[in-house]
Amino acid sequence: MNSGAVLEATDRTQLTRRAHRAHYDLDTINSILDEGFVCHLGFTWNNHPFVIPTCYGRDGRRLLVHGSAGSRMLRALSDGIDACLTVTLVDGIILARGAFNQSINYRSVVVLGKARPIEDLEQKSQALITLSEHLVPKRWDFVREPSKKELAATLILEMNLDEASAKIRSGPPLDEDEDYDLPIWAGELPVFTRFGTAVPDPRNLPEVVVPEHAQNYHRTPQVDLS
Amino acid sequence: MNSGAVLEATDRTQLTRRAHRAHYDLDTINSILDEGFVCHLGFTWNNHPFVIPTCYGRDGRRLLVHGSAGSRMLRALSDGIDACLTVTLVDGIILARGAFNQSINYRSVVVLGKARPIEDLEQKSQALITLSEHLVPKRWDFVREPSKKELAATLILEMNLDEASAKIRSGPPLDEDEDYDLPIWAGELPVFTRFGTAVPDPRNLPEVVVPEHAQNYHRTPQVDLS
Repeated sequence: MNSGAVLEATDRTQLTRRAHRAHYDLDTINSILDEGFVCHLGFTWNNHPFVIPTCYGRDGRRLLVHGSAGSRMLRALSDGIDACLTVTLVDGIILARGAFNQSINYRSVVVLGKARPIEDLEQKSQALITLSEHLVPKRWDFVREPSKKELAATLILEMNLDEASAKIRSGPPLDEDEDYDLPIWAGELPVFTRFGTAVPDPRNLPEVVVPEHAQNYHRTPQVDLS
Repeated sequence: MNSGAVLEATDRTQLTRRAHRAHYDLDTINSILDEGFVCHLGFTWNNHPFVIPTCYGRDGRRLLVHGSAGSRMLRALSDGIDACLTVTLVDGIILARGAFNQSINYRSVVVLGKARPIEDLEQKSQALITLSEHLVPKRWDFVREPSKKELAATLILEMNLDEASAKIRSGPPLDEDEDYDLPIWAGELPVFTRFGTAVPDPRNLPEVVVPEHAQNYHRTPQVDLS
């Protein structure tokens, strides 16, 4: 499902160095957002920048973030808060011939905007489904749905996916021309995120069996980039 | 090597919720910092928070960051900039019985302070060694050292490891008491970072062989927490 849509680069999302690594098309941006499941949310609190890891989900052009991790900070800001949501997938460590050219292969997305808390209970409920399905696809139908009290205690922030860019570094080391004559091994160490065999909670009832969504858990980009 | 040192919690690093998950001792903090190799650096630019992924290294109570990723933003701030450096290691996805209790097992460190550019060339040179050895231990002796020109073009920021906290969630799902009677499979999906077989650069000279540091790459916490 290729949308073909491309976001406008702004002063804040335009790369000035290595501009070829920047991508503004939603297919690329969404594929990274959909493969990842932990973001780093940046915001200002008491005049200081804070970055907290938290789970997120995507509903079209809207990103949803579970605010509980930093609730003390985020709850105070019911009018919305300037935020930066960054998702990074690390693909490899680049071993170059020159120390200066050591690098990382990665795919990242930076989303800028205002994070606003969702107040409406029905919208919150929908947002929780999106968050749950992003983290563990197909699990929602298995779990006990949140109570009204739990919903009230949940802080969910939404951000528009309007001002954003992806940055991708891939491929072999990029060394200085003269360094290619040096007898130094160069290459890439691939880095993977792997999911192990599901470990049952010791308190599971004897009759329950591991469901398909846990036994064959995998994350695939929802957009085919090939 | 246990230092035994414990950082003082501040208003900004004190957890108000689930305080048992917070750790202020340097052994715990350093073990997380030493196992990770990509941090998310948060700072304010043009009155908006930004979060960029970048490599880092640790030299005792000092963190070093390669600033090139956001150089346009960071170079402008030669006096130092308020920053938050966050490192997150994801250990598992927690599948709880209640949707509200879905979670992540993780270990994270949040460091607050001022990031200052290192100007002195000798100090920069030393910092590059620390950064390189953090990313790929034992590689420094194999690579072509940076030229003066490269050193001048490198932006390295340092931050003190003074105001920081670790946060760790581990163990099985934590469900509401009554939910344990539900016939719902609960458990943990372990998440691992794995390093694949080193892929040689097609432009390697024929006689070079893959060095030990690339063939048997692994990251282990430098502090034994057992």
